[in-house]
Amino acid sequence: MKEVFADIVTIGDEILYGQILDTNSQWISQQLDDLGIKVRRKYSISDKSELIKEAVKESLEKCQLVLITGGLGPTKDDLTKHALAECFGMSLELNHSALEDVEDIFKRMGKELTEINRQQAFLPKGSVKITNERGTAPGMWFDIDKKVVVSMPGVPFEMKAMMTKTVLPKIKQKFTLPVILHQVIRTIGIGESWLSEKIARWEDALPNHLALAYLPGRNQVRLRLTGVGDDRETLKSEMDEEIAKLLPTIQQFVYGFGDLEIEEAVGELLRTRELTIATAESCTGGFLSHKLTSISGSSDYYLGSVIAYHNSIKQQELKVSPKTLEKHGAVSEEVAKEMAEGVRKKLKVDIGISTTGIAGPDGGTEEKPVGTVWMAISFGGKLYSQKIQSPGTRLLNIEYSAIKALDFIRQTLNEG
Amino acid sequence: MKEVFADIVTIGDEILYGQILDTNSQWISQQLDDLGIKVRRKYSISDKSELIKEAVKESLEKCQLVLITGGLGPTKDDLTKHALAECFGMSLELNHSALEDVEDIFKRMGKELTEINRQQAFLPKGSVKITNERGTAPGMWFDIDKKVVVSMPGVPFEMKAMMTKTVLPKIKQKFTLPVILHQVIRTIGIGESWLSEKIARWEDALPNHLALAYLPGRNQVRLRLTGVGDDRETLKSEMDEEIAKLLPTIQQFVYGFGDLEIEEAVGELLRTRELTIATAESCTGGFLSHKLTSISGSSDYYLGSVIAYHNSIKQQELKVSPKTLEKHGAVSEEVAKEMAEGVRKKLKVDIGISTTGIAGPDGGTEEKPVGTVWMAISFGGKLYSQKIQSPGTRLLNIEYSAIKALDFIRQTLNEG
Repeated sequence: MKEVFADIVTIGDEILYGQILDTNSQWISQQLDDLGIKVRRKYSISDKSELIKEAVKESLEKCQLVLITGGLGPTKDDLTKHALAECFGMSLELNHSALEDVEDIFKRMGKELTEINRQQAFLPKGSVKITNERGTAPGMWFDIDKKVVVSMPGVPFEMKAMMTKTVLPKIKQKFTLPVILHQVIRTIGIGESWLSEKIARWEDALPNHLALAYLPGRNQVRLRLTGVGDDRETLKSEMDEEIAKLLPTIQQFVYGFGDLEIEEAVGELLRTRELTIATAESCTGGFLSHKLTSISGSSDYYLGSVIAYHNSIKQQELKVSPKTLEKHGAVSEEVAKEMAEGVRKKLKVDIGISTTGIAGPDGGTEEKPVGTVWMAISFGGKLYSQKIQSPGTRLLNIEYSAIKALDFIRQTLNEG
Repeated sequence: MKEVFADIVTIGDEILYGQILDTNSQWISQQLDDLGIKVRRKYSISDKSELIKEAVKESLEKCQLVLITGGLGPTKDDLTKHALAECFGMSLELNHSALEDVEDIFKRMGKELTEINRQQAFLPKGSVKITNERGTAPGMWFDIDKKVVVSMPGVPFEMKAMMTKTVLPKIKQKFTLPVILHQVIRTIGIGESWLSEKIARWEDALPNHLALAYLPGRNQVRLRLTGVGDDRETLKSEMDEEIAKLLPTIQQFVYGFGDLEIEEAVGELLRTRELTIATAESCTGGFLSHKLTSISGSSDYYLGSVIAYHNSIKQQELKVSPKTLEKHGAVSEEVAKEMAEGVRKKLKVDIGISTTGIAGPDGGTEEKPVGTVWMAISFGGKLYSQKIQSPGTRLLNIEYSAIKALDFIRQTLNEG
């Protein structure tokens, strides 16, 4: 079977100038990967007709599939459609079905169709219109000598609907695809080098068609095992076996597999043990609560929180004693403990977890530098506490602390 | 003056397979853009020696500067260093200064140097070591026939320190740079097409060396005016003049300029008017509080919050009446108003803002579909409320609602 290669092209000066973050190409990669299509290159280029044509031609020489996002908006700096028409020697003509789509959208919004939106219904003759359910710019599918070029809008939620509903099903029909499987093991609380040393012997003994990669993240390292084969079932059981061999070596650091985020793993623990939780947050300012509630169904175990930014709220709402605040300062083990205890009692939950620290960039001292965070858990008649030193800027410190707090819950529940 | 062009290359299967999101290239773009260097292309390729060499050669043909991230970790799937050494016909040799750096890091962590970390101190002979203050992999600077290739680690916080401290200053020394200026106008609450129609006449009259781009985001559109010239002051005052002409047309939608986020604009309003705020959040689960506290210095106006996920907390902490909950349901204008009023009184602030809605994916009904959110503000003896319909998945709905809530505060303060 011939492997299918794809290039992903994102168009727009806003990406090259760094004004927006390209999240489209990551998402598209994941979808192609699931189908066993290898992404050969991803690239971002400027909104210029010559560059777009050059890029598409170059990619078509080396890939069977080219997916393009961006440059389809109604405004004057969007040129993709014209460039592709020229590239394939096609003229633009009014696509009546596309016009109906855009008229429909304006009707639903109770607004009048503008001339520039009407222009969006002109498509290269010979391309197939891809319906955009969430916006005014239609997508385009080009069949070019057994290869395929697809052009989609750059707005992520428009592009995603288009991919899911139309483009991916058409790709599956068009190409015969090999079997590529990924399995991801998610670890927390151990660095890449240490992990690598721990599992070196196992890694060295892996057969050739299985490859391991380390994907480091915020206080987490994901291990991704990739296998290529002919038969899905055989490959899967082979990979399962290898992972079963590996796990005992790193058990304490593994919190889950695949796409599972630490907040989901913690949610599952709480749900299984029928425990409820509430947070008392100072430095994390609601972000820990957000992580917990980002999981659908979290209302089963998450009841609420007190964000106690100002000391007056720590006292009034969480019953932190003024003496403790005065003696130890707001960023201290003692205050963290009283906050955790306070929120557990107030909101009548099984677990209270608190954070208090210095997110920065100001407020650090020699004794308590920016990034110093105390957290505490009140659970089962006991108080647990830990201090962390977060390494970064304000937003990183907030995020890092919240993830540490989630791991703290996991560890406490696994022990307690 | 000759324009300086750069390519940015990110290396790693984890990017191509979509396992991680590439944020490095955006950040690097912004830095280069500030220096007046034009990013020609950004691309991501696989961890394969042949591909890395091919990419670097190709980029060097068209650009004076090639910045590479990734593929320098200590583990076995990292090949960039070897590929670059081969590409430039250099051998690897132990760099004593790099060895000292890595020994130093291990000493600070109180850990013993591993052999694989020691290997990281071998660098291509002829390259200049770039100190990595935050990790074990040194960066490399190559001078190749008046052009420059730089290789850096893929871990964002290591790469950023390296860029700021060493690479950007060296680039400024090496190249003579033109003047490119960007000015960004930030709008909220108006779509791209409507905005475009409103300002079409102004846009058409712009001189050739000034270009406008629309950067749409979550419920926001940024307008970016880019100017190219010889003299910074002349160009800047020319651009200021154009913007002064534009503003009256779109005043009500403009919340700020440049990098200013809506949460900062709201913070500035609160600070200037010496008002304090607290949130009462249900569906946003702490994310609105997080947005407000993501700004350094927010403790001047943000005191705290009650996250009332469960109805019992809405009643007990925010004094929402059981009758209102029963009669109208938790997602209703009446409950939103009582929550806003409740939190304002409880936490003794000037402004209480509430959110209650259905974040999804479950819990929607025909009457109140997923994405239905009520929000209310209690301020100055009055109650304000609004209903929004958010269009997406759970996380998008949470984010969208929080941004709408921030704009709701802005509008209320501007009117009230």
